[in-house]
This record gives sequence, C-alpha cells and structure tokens, in this order.
Amino acid sequence: MQDQFRFTVQATGAPAARAGLLHTPHGAITTPVFMPVGTNATVKSVTPDELLACNAQIILANTYHLSLRPGGETIASLGGIHHFMRWDGPILTDSGGFQVFSLGHLRRLDEDGVTFRSHLDGSTRRFTPEAVIALEEQIGADIIMPLDQCIALPAEHDVARAAMDRTSRWLERCVAAHGRGDQALFGIVQGAAFADLRRAHARALREMNLPGYAIGGLSVGEPKEQMHAMLEVVEPELPADRPRYLMGVGAPEDLVEGVARGIDMFDVVLPTRIARNGSLLTRLGRVNLRNAQYVGRDAPADPTCACPTCRVYSVAYLHHLFHCEELLAYRLATIHNLWFMTTLIGDIRQSILEDRFGGFREEFHAAYRPPNQEASVQQRTRRTAGRAGTRADSPVEV
Amino acid sequence: MQDQFRFTVQATGAPAARAGLLHTPHGAITTPVFMPVGTNATVKSVTPDELLACNAQIILANTYHLSLRPGGETIASLGGIHHFMRWDGPILTDSGGFQVFSLGHLRRLDEDGVTFRSHLDGSTRRFTPEAVIALEEQIGADIIMPLDQCIALPAEHDVARAAMDRTSRWLERCVAAHGRGDQALFGIVQGAAFADLRRAHARALREMNLPGYAIGGLSVGEPKEQMHAMLEVVEPELPADRPRYLMGVGAPEDLVEGVARGIDMFDVVLPTRIARNGSLLTRLGRVNLRNAQYVGRDAPADPTCACPTCRVYSVAYLHHLFHCEELLAYRLATIHNLWFMTTLIGDIRQSILEDRFGGFREEFHAAYRPPNQEASVQQRTRRTAGRAGTRADSPVEV
Repeated sequence: MQDQFRFTVQATGAPAARAGLLHTPHGAITTPVFMPVGTNATVKSVTPDELLACNAQIILANTYHLSLRPGGETIASLGGIHHFMRWDGPILTDSGGFQVFSLGHLRRLDEDGVTFRSHLDGSTRRFTPEAVIALEEQIGADIIMPLDQCIALPAEHDVARAAMDRTSRWLERCVAAHGRGDQALFGIVQGAAFADLRRAHARALREMNLPGYAIGGLSVGEPKEQMHAMLEVVEPELPADRPRYLMGVGAPEDLVEGVARGIDMFDVVLPTRIARNGSLLTRLGRVNLRNAQYVGRDAPADPTCACPTCRVYSVAYLHHLFHCEELLAYRLATIHNLWFMTTLIGDIRQSILEDRFGGFREEFHAAYRPPNQEASVQQRTRRTAGRAGTRADSPVEV
Repeated sequence: MQDQFRFTVQATGAPAARAGLLHTPHGAITTPVFMPVGTNATVKSVTPDELLACNAQIILANTYHLSLRPGGETIASLGGIHHFMRWDGPILTDSGGFQVFSLGHLRRLDEDGVTFRSHLDGSTRRFTPEAVIALEEQIGADIIMPLDQCIALPAEHDVARAAMDRTSRWLERCVAAHGRGDQALFGIVQGAAFADLRRAHARALREMNLPGYAIGGLSVGEPKEQMHAMLEVVEPELPADRPRYLMGVGAPEDLVEGVARGIDMFDVVLPTRIARNGSLLTRLGRVNLRNAQYVGRDAPADPTCACPTCRVYSVAYLHHLFHCEELLAYRLATIHNLWFMTTLIGDIRQSILEDRFGGFREEFHAAYRPPNQEASVQQRTRRTAGRAGTRADSPVEV
C-alpha cells in the first residue's frame, strides 16, 4: 500500500514550507494542494470537466452526507464514487464525524461510537469506527479519514485530553477494520488549543506509521494566532516523508500561512460557498458581484485573471446574472474561485521550487486585504453554532 | 434589409411542411427550428458553448424582463445582447406585450399603449409600440416582435376583433418607428379562435410585406384541435417565401403537428422548465428523474440519446443530484432536453428533405406518449391564470 501513496518532498522553504508529490491510485498530486469540496459527490454547480479546467487535482466528499444519500451500498453497487460522479482523479473522504457533531444532531456518544439522527428524515443512525471504515470502503475514495471525537473551542484541558485519547482508541480500531489496500487511512491529530496535548498526540500518531497525517479541530472559531501556534507545535513532531492535511482550512491567507507551517493539503467550502453568494476572490481581496458599481462595466471581474469565467464574461454580465438570481451565476463565480485557489496554491508551490517562498509570502500579504478578521471569526462561530452542544463537557455519555 | 433575412424553402412535405434556410446578420438558421428561451439573456443554467453543443441555432430573449434588468440602455451601452451574453448566433426578442398581460399586473390599456407595474418593484412603466421598438433596438436582437394586444381564450367575437384591429394599428406604428436595418420586424397574426378573424388578419398582414409572420394568442389553454384549426386557416393566407413562427409552442408533439401545418419556427419554455423539475423528454414520452426506480441504475437516462448528459452520466447519478437538489442537476437535465428538441426538429427537417415527413409523423406519434392532455390543458390554464383579468372584456380602458 505504502508504495501506491508514495510521498516525495521536492523542495523546502523557510520556515517549514514544502513542495512535494503525492501518488495515489488515481494519479499523482503536486503539493501543496487545495481540495475543492464535493459534499454530495458533486462540487456544487460544476462538472468534473470544469474541475479539470480549473486545475483541480483532488476533491473531497463527505461520508456523512453520502451515507444518507445515496448510501454506501448504492455507491458500491454503482462502481464506487469515482465512476458514480465521473471524476477519475483522486478523492478524499472525511469520516462524517465532524458533521455528526456539527449539524446540531440529537446524539448519544459512548466509547463504542455515536448514535445520531439524520438531519434529513430524523431516522436514527449509528457511527462506530468500524462502521465508518466500512462506509468509506464502499464509497471507495483514495484517501480516507478515521472517526474522531470532535470538540468545540475553547475547551477544558481534561475534556480535550479525554476526547484526544478516545480519538486514538478509535483510530486503532479504524486501522484494524480497514482492509482495502488501495486506500490510504490518515490519522487525525487532535488536542484542542493545548500545546502539550497537540504535541503528545502527534507523537503518538507518528508511532503508528500512517501514510498521512491530518490536523483536526482547528479553524472552528478560534483566533488565527492560536491556530498558527498549534501548527507550529505539531509540525516538528510529524514525519517529514508523509503528507500533512489541515482539515477545513482555509481562506487564501490561511493557505499561505499553513504552507509556511508545513501543511501540504487543504480543503474548505469557503471559495465555493462565497461564490454562490456573489463573492469573488482576487489577489487584492474579495469582490462582491452584487455591487451596483458593476452594472455597466464591460470588463472581466478580475482583469488579472485567466480563468474560464474571466476569459469570457464581463463583470456587468455576472452582476446581471446575480441580480436576476440566474443559475448560471453560481457556476461562473464558482469556476472563478476554484481557479483562484488552485492558481494561488500553484504559485505558492512554484515559489518553493524556486526558493523564493519567503518573498512570495510577503508580497501576497502586502497586496491581499482579507475581510475584517473579527467579522470573519464571528461568521465562523455562527456557522459552527450547532456545535455548542458538542462541547465535550456536555454530550450525553451513556 | 430583406436580403439579410433571405428565406429559402428547400423542400416541402404534405400537407404543408417545409424545410428552409433563414439568413440573419448572425448566421443562417435551418428550419424548422426550435428556439430555446433565454428570458434574462441566459438560457437558464447553460452557457452559450453548451447551447452550441446542444445544436441550438437561435435563442429567444424577453424584452419585458430585459427592460427591467438590466434595462435597454445598459444593454446598448454594453454592445447589445449578443456581446452582453456572449452568444454570437441569431437572437429573437418578443415585444414584452405578452408578459405585461400575463404576469398579473395592475395595468391600464389605451389606444396609445399600456401602463403597468413592474413585477419586481411595483414601479410604473409604459409600453407603447414606439417604446417597445426603441427597447428592442437597444437590445439588438436579429428578429424582433411588435407590441400586440393579447387576450385570453375563450373570447367574444367583438372583443377579439377589437384587439386584432388594435394590434394592426400598433404594428403600423412599430413599422414606422423601426429604424435598424439589421433587424427583421415580424408581424403577429391574432384573431383568437375565430377562423374569419384569423383569415382576415393574416391577409391584412400579408399586404404589409413583412420579413416574417408570427402566429400569436394560441396555446393559452385551448384544446389542441382548436390550435390546429387556426393554423390550418392561417397557413394558406401567408406568403410561402416568408418564415412563420408559432409563438410559445410547443411540446414535442406540437412541433410535429405545427410543421405539418406550415410552421417554421417554435419557442417554448417547456423543455427547460420541466428539466429543472427533473423531467426528461424522450421519443417515448417523459421520464421523471426523481422516481426512486432510478436510484441504482448505472445506465443513461435515455439509452438511445447521444446528448452531452446521456453520453457521460448515469440516471442513478442524475436521480441522486435531483434528490439532493444539487445545482448540477438542473443543468444536466436542461442539456438533455435542449438536445432532445433540436434533434427532434432536425429529424423532422431531414424527413422533409428526404420526402418522408408523413411517415416520420406517423412513427413519431406511434411511439410518443404525451402527458394526459386534460391534465396538460389544466396546467396551461393554471399557468395563465394571471391572465384571467386580461380578457379583453375586463381591462381598464381609459
């Protein structure tokens, strides 16, 4: 198995950036890489051909959603997720654990797993480490994640430690249950915002000699400084010859800062979600297509952009489509933002290969104006408000 | 001007079918032709490239909607509708008159025109024949329609006659107001369901020597037999060397029967609208993608279809996308139905060219099972319910 998922570091840049190559049974990925999110086996509004045109290399799908619709058995009977959605490139599935904790379910958590109600029909479902691995084997992604116990931040030290220890025990059960040699099962480093826990967990997982390491439980409402501090604690503890995946991150500035701290893989719904709200990413910051100033401007939304949308359509037309709530609007904006993310991560990679990552990082931040961070944190907190009840000091233990 | 819009009949088939070629400043169209509807300067969910891939030759846009968003002046300042929406093929605009009467507006009708409230913001607007032509010149389509007075069926004879006569007076004002030599202004034959009125109006319009003739006020809830009877009355009165356009029609069976009665051009929202509801057209009838029987079927929705959707995706995946209300669902179904319509009309044309239209017509009806006609008439009646107040015996005359 290890050979199918061979990871090679091709170049490094201070402080901890790497450019690499990750092989999978569905082709090799250059890293660092941004993975578009295709929750229901579709990156919302775009086709696999359009993903390729946007230079997407690997996409993420959500085990929780796919377990409800169309179900693991159905996907397996249809030849697995690659054939089902007609995407022949690499795919990663999460474990569904995060959604169980984040979607505001009534749930019961015990040492063996978690019982929850479907957000669709209220039916009761059960996720254990073994059940999740069985689902992920049915779905058939190239890279799969183990069930972990998610907690919200801030958290008490003993609560964070207990969740981390249970995550380790569940990981061992996942490894034991996992049989498919054409799938790489990553570990997930937890430990909330405690440096000692993060360090200890990273060391423990390293001992398990896994094909890759994810970092979970971050970007859930905490200040960016705290996330950066945790990455700096974890990075030296992880083996240099395995890919590192920062789950659920990030915004453009998070890609640059994550790579600086040794991250190779990112996924986040942000670029596709804000696209459907009319917000385009540029190297200077965000552009809101709904803004009336664009009504008569016969020029690309981003004059520096070569994406399939900016190459063809004017910002006046995009504004019109959003104004009329036309379906085409969501697709054209999504294509731009996907192209933006893959181009940004590609430029980061190139700067590492050419030994000028430090300069690139400075230039990026000098030009890019992120949305007000306080507002941004509030947004994330609101989005994860359903997780309030998931704080490990409150779930129903049985 | 006439030369730019040269129409040639290439072959005919009994009883009154024709295959022809209509030249426009944006290229030639083979007829009979189906025109996809792009209300807001976008055929909902698809790009111009996809329209071409579906063999669309000419599209329709709605003057009423475009007059509200983004407005005629804005489109003119952006280079006209072709450049605005990046569709370089022929375009036809209606006059907006039908929407003024159909969208349930508060309106005041007088000899000079009609005052109505925008369905978007309630603001008061005024359409006169001259104002509509000015709008259509700003929009810049190749083929444009004059303002007409629409009435609902059934209608009294004197009411229908009055609306028809006013339509004639308005047409003369439209012709006088129209200045652009690169646009063909068609006439619209009215006369409700009265053979004498339809015949008289067709004769009157023929005298005006227009570049094309539309037939309006049909398919508004009346039985199909009545529509067919009106077409049979009008057809012999229209010049053979001008294209004939049946407005707002039709379903697959309407294309076959319309061509049989001498129609060259059709437009209708049906294939794109029902696509977004999960309904696919096939030569056997409609297929509902939401049906649970498709959940595990790894085969094209229509095994006989070569459209960009059926070539790539399984009906199981389409069912899944509709089940999850994923944006991609609407596009993939729209592409199939557009391909179906252009392929059907293309097959009709080919059968005329090969002198076997009669056989094609029989074979089509033997295989195709249309939805229950009574249910279909009720649907249309419900859809045009907003027009109840538009019966010419009720509008506010001032």
